[in-house]
Amino acid sequence: MSAWVLPDHIADVLPSEARHIEEIRRDLLDMARCYGYELVMPPLLEHLESLLSGTGEALDLQTFKLVDQLSGRMMGLRADTTPQVARIDAHLLNRRGVTRLCYCGPVVHTRPGGPHATREPLQFGAEIYGHAGVEADLEILTLALDALRAVNAGALTVDLADARVVNALLGASGMPASQCELVHVALAEKDGSAIQALTAGVPLPIAQGLQQLVDLYGDISVLDRALATLPALPEVQEAIGGLRWLAGHIEGARVSIDLSDLRGYAYYTGARFSIFSRSANDALARGGRYDEVGSVFGRKRPAVGFSLDVKALAEAVEPKPLHLAVRAPWGEAPSLREAIAKLRKQGETVVRVLPGHENEVDEFQCDRELVQIADRWVVKAV
Amino acid sequence: MSAWVLPDHIADVLPSEARHIEEIRRDLLDMARCYGYELVMPPLLEHLESLLSGTGEALDLQTFKLVDQLSGRMMGLRADTTPQVARIDAHLLNRRGVTRLCYCGPVVHTRPGGPHATREPLQFGAEIYGHAGVEADLEILTLALDALRAVNAGALTVDLADARVVNALLGASGMPASQCELVHVALAEKDGSAIQALTAGVPLPIAQGLQQLVDLYGDISVLDRALATLPALPEVQEAIGGLRWLAGHIEGARVSIDLSDLRGYAYYTGARFSIFSRSANDALARGGRYDEVGSVFGRKRPAVGFSLDVKALAEAVEPKPLHLAVRAPWGEAPSLREAIAKLRKQGETVVRVLPGHENEVDEFQCDRELVQIADRWVVKAV
Repeated sequence: MSAWVLPDHIADVLPSEARHIEEIRRDLLDMARCYGYELVMPPLLEHLESLLSGTGEALDLQTFKLVDQLSGRMMGLRADTTPQVARIDAHLLNRRGVTRLCYCGPVVHTRPGGPHATREPLQFGAEIYGHAGVEADLEILTLALDALRAVNAGALTVDLADARVVNALLGASGMPASQCELVHVALAEKDGSAIQALTAGVPLPIAQGLQQLVDLYGDISVLDRALATLPALPEVQEAIGGLRWLAGHIEGARVSIDLSDLRGYAYYTGARFSIFSRSANDALARGGRYDEVGSVFGRKRPAVGFSLDVKALAEAVEPKPLHLAVRAPWGEAPSLREAIAKLRKQGETVVRVLPGHENEVDEFQCDRELVQIADRWVVKAV
Repeated sequence: MSAWVLPDHIADVLPSEARHIEEIRRDLLDMARCYGYELVMPPLLEHLESLLSGTGEALDLQTFKLVDQLSGRMMGLRADTTPQVARIDAHLLNRRGVTRLCYCGPVVHTRPGGPHATREPLQFGAEIYGHAGVEADLEILTLALDALRAVNAGALTVDLADARVVNALLGASGMPASQCELVHVALAEKDGSAIQALTAGVPLPIAQGLQQLVDLYGDISVLDRALATLPALPEVQEAIGGLRWLAGHIEGARVSIDLSDLRGYAYYTGARFSIFSRSANDALARGGRYDEVGSVFGRKRPAVGFSLDVKALAEAVEPKPLHLAVRAPWGEAPSLREAIAKLRKQGETVVRVLPGHENEVDEFQCDRELVQIADRWVVKAV
């Protein structure tokens, strides 16, 4: 096989796409900064047990493993940045109050997430540690929406769910964990008859509640139906009240509810959201509350956050118009050097024609040219 | 061992340092863009044979190896971005004329380069493909100097060398490769008596030339001494002429010459440079000509470039003053939301105090506060 063939689901990012990704990256980080989120850069490699502590089997399978020659210990190539940021909050910063952190860097997966997915997403995310209230949930969701607006992601829809609804019903069902897993699968497939069969021995209100979940999706009125039909467990009521408050505070985006949505159920502990636009099939950003995330590092703190893949986002949004360049001749005159330096200082791209290449068409699109007229260098349209 | 201990020579980058690195990263990329260098983002993982083709044993030892589950083939985690960019020039862009490319991303090393070095540098670099002239060497060197000036790296010194001088002398010596290796070692140690012993059977002018190399370092006058004392081989004369031209065109930096400097001799094929500042022991940036770099990808093109580690550079330059923030209260009034949105749009960082945390000192430094006076929200000093 040729030396230049890349592995499957691994690709180079070429100039116009790379520029687009870099611009989006800056817009996202700038939005997080102006919300007061501090940037951190966790390493690509960590000891396997810190990368995977408490994160579940799915992340383990997604993580490349390596031997550290210095220590002989196993290391992992990060497949998700969130556990690293939780570690930083828990140990390195170790603050008492609210901590807002953001990050942007590559993660690597052993297998692609889908038929066209890259194994090397560029993950951007933001997180609040130390606040258990819905206000923190709302701030994260609002930041996610504003970040997507900053890159002109178009009309947005927020799907809301809450991990506590299913968890409370399963907790009250008395079913063993293995059977709960089967209910999870049936819920994910919205398979009502499977749920009915699985909950045959469960107290009736709970069994009915689990069966009703598969129909509890749609617009905001789903929350009223849920209150009326689900058993009045405190966690269920708290979750529904929280979603109602959140939904009422979302501005400029359509809101939908799906109480049987279980994506990431092993991870989230409260409200969760996915943000969609018309230009992409998959969610552009996902987030929610995962209060347990720091506990393996000895410091359980409330946590809420979101993340997205900048590469996928770049495919879903239009690039900014290309910044056109000025072509300048080669030459040693100080006046030419000064004219070029001045244009570059003004933010212009100035491409110098190297000797012997005067007649080439520039790959970098030049719409203007620096030419000498009398004693002065002036920019003229090409 | 605790789950939060990182491997040796691997570290988290915490907020103030991360901000500093991100600012430098943007300044470097912006400088490359205004010179007309197009950004590319090669992947972290590639098949081992494409990552290591023609790059020598040193890079092989520095490269982490992984098995690709999808194909069963060996992959490497990139330890250097240059061979990847050469591959992109050779195959993906495949242009006839001059191509200018730049990149910025992490590389990973199995072992640290020094007692305090990170195993995860953030490599920034720029390269010109398709131009064999000294003008391209000068453009790359000038860009490297301007990039370092853009981040206020202080007074700079350029060390110039040329791989052709030693190579031409060794080529003319008739010595076998194994003996040439020993001369390389002796030159690196500036060990004149070892060179004398090794070159005992070599034609006298060549042997004397190799012996003289160890003294051929210092200011620009070294080039005159070299012309007078080294054998008049065409490659040696071309190299010295090129260095003289380059040295004469460097502005605003001290120039020194070291003709016995062999760093990267397996890699460079012509003039090479290292740029130093007073604030760092090691070079801030290194570069030069390596015309062979694309040949393993079936397309040998002239190539000249430079690279640097953004993390090391961040340690050597002062961070910009911290952008101070505005503290804003929690509240649901539309006028408050609008006031906050307006400040953020102006580029201000506005940190909202979450309920229950009103009395906390913000970790994000706030020098101003958004307060309501009569019906209006105004920014006041804290």
